[in-house]
Amino acid sequence: MARRSLPLSRVYGLLEPGPVVLVTTARGGRPNVMAMSWYTMLEFEPPLVGCVISNRNHSFGILKATRECVIAIPAVGIADKVVGCGNTSGADTDKFLKFGLTASPAAKIGAPLIDECHVNLECRVADTGMVAKYCLFVVEVVKAWIDPAVRNPRTIHHLGSGNFMVAGERIKLKSRMK
Amino acid sequence: MARRSLPLSRVYGLLEPGPVVLVTTARGGRPNVMAMSWYTMLEFEPPLVGCVISNRNHSFGILKATRECVIAIPAVGIADKVVGCGNTSGADTDKFLKFGLTASPAAKIGAPLIDECHVNLECRVADTGMVAKYCLFVVEVVKAWIDPAVRNPRTIHHLGSGNFMVAGERIKLKSRMK
Repeated sequence: MARRSLPLSRVYGLLEPGPVVLVTTARGGRPNVMAMSWYTMLEFEPPLVGCVISNRNHSFGILKATRECVIAIPAVGIADKVVGCGNTSGADTDKFLKFGLTASPAAKIGAPLIDECHVNLECRVADTGMVAKYCLFVVEVVKAWIDPAVRNPRTIHHLGSGNFMVAGERIKLKSRMK
Repeated sequence: MARRSLPLSRVYGLLEPGPVVLVTTARGGRPNVMAMSWYTMLEFEPPLVGCVISNRNHSFGILKATRECVIAIPAVGIADKVVGCGNTSGADTDKFLKFGLTASPAAKIGAPLIDECHVNLECRVADTGMVAKYCLFVVEVVKAWIDPAVRNPRTIHHLGSGNFMVAGERIKLKSRMK
């Protein structure tokens, strides 16, 4: 195999491609939504997710204050809306209105579900100890919703600079891993 | 759209599908390797990656002691080896030998590169402050290697219980996002 050195600035595009998600918050009756690719599972059950939400995002202050959000998973059919959410700020834009997303009430929290997403996870902030240093919120998923009609969703995975990988075929391998 | 409630224990399979990576370490001249799906980018440059490495893994102690690892990205062609690494322990198995993986010297650190992977990232542990609570190591990528011959690698993305999504088509959308 051949190898060449890669600029360190491009590393993020190699590690980032988990599914792009949308994160909703709400304050004073106004919902907001942002796109997020930097997150990781931290615990199986109760599910804990570490979410990097920059303090430059309008959602940062809302999440800190309300401690509630929804993590929603979109598929390629609404990729343009997802990118739109990532390129605008809730500080000056009603993104649900602008991008034609439908907010529905959640069961346990004040942030809204997104009807156009096949997965919606209601979350409460569980730990803010890493927010100051890494903008990393630990959230606990307290209620999970899926659309059972959606099989093998074509999720999108950000590769950097507007390039996305769309989820392909599925394979099953013999494994004892959880 | 229809919705049904999903058991919280299955949430991880929805959020996890970033590319499965292999993480190598070495101590006393003996290399080890594990599979990892729980990680997230934390900073663009220098690239910081938050890696969840359970204290039940043999690699945990080595990484704590040596503070060096390689994050290598495999594609579907060696999916069986990746699953093998995930289902065995370095405590009793030489996984490079058992699964026919080739360890090559890294440039800056003591842990080995994996020849069979199209990406190899040499990393040093930058922060252990979240290890006690979440087994979360912050590592800094100090050197990145790719195989330039590999375009659109068919990375594998763990969906839980031995199910994997294989990277599909790529699309480009107009975006100002980094």
